[in-house]
Amino acid sequence: MDNCIFCKIAKGEIPAKTVYEDAHVMAFHDIAPKADTHILVIPKTHITNLMTVGERDWPVLTHLMNKVNHIAAAQGLEGFRLISNNGTKGSQEVMHMHWHVLGGDQLPGF
Amino acid sequence: MDNCIFCKIAKGEIPAKTVYEDAHVMAFHDIAPKADTHILVIPKTHITNLMTVGERDWPVLTHLMNKVNHIAAAQGLEGFRLISNNGTKGSQEVMHMHWHVLGGDQLPGF
Repeated sequence: MDNCIFCKIAKGEIPAKTVYEDAHVMAFHDIAPKADTHILVIPKTHITNLMTVGERDWPVLTHLMNKVNHIAAAQGLEGFRLISNNGTKGSQEVMHMHWHVLGGDQLPGF
Repeated sequence: MDNCIFCKIAKGEIPAKTVYEDAHVMAFHDIAPKADTHILVIPKTHITNLMTVGERDWPVLTHLMNKVNHIAAAQGLEGFRLISNNGTKGSQEVMHMHWHVLGGDQLPGF
């Protein structure tokens, strides 16, 4: 997607404070953290959100979920909140799937 | 797990306002809703949280994620927030994996 900021981050065209990267997944610090630790985990391929995951994308999502554990542990988190906003009505702002990994003493939401 | 409330709900031993059920997944209304629509989606098998998903559990989780879309759509949601709390440090209260599906005009968190 030409104008997708997360596609550009995945391609290295826009810098990010990357904490994990492999062939399918990338994780980086949110630029406006809402918790002591606030990491975004994205698929490198453009998937809009959970509602648009196609048949061939499910293995990528499963891989991503697995890596969330690895990424959280590497941040020293013993536990974390995982949030994804899906669709405009779900308050999604960037239309490239991203999972918020939140850790620390004060977690937003509930 | 003998004393797990969500295992008991999955077995039908404790009533719930169920909105979806199949062999692997169950979804029901949260008893203390924090949004206009607040559904919990759980695997029927006891998985503590994302951090403890074993090799054989990943297909169940993938299936669950797929069904989240179905469940949200059946509730008339055009978009939704998906939250899971993992571990005590992630504010997890019931130690059986559950995914909060939140929809409506005012979503908690961000």
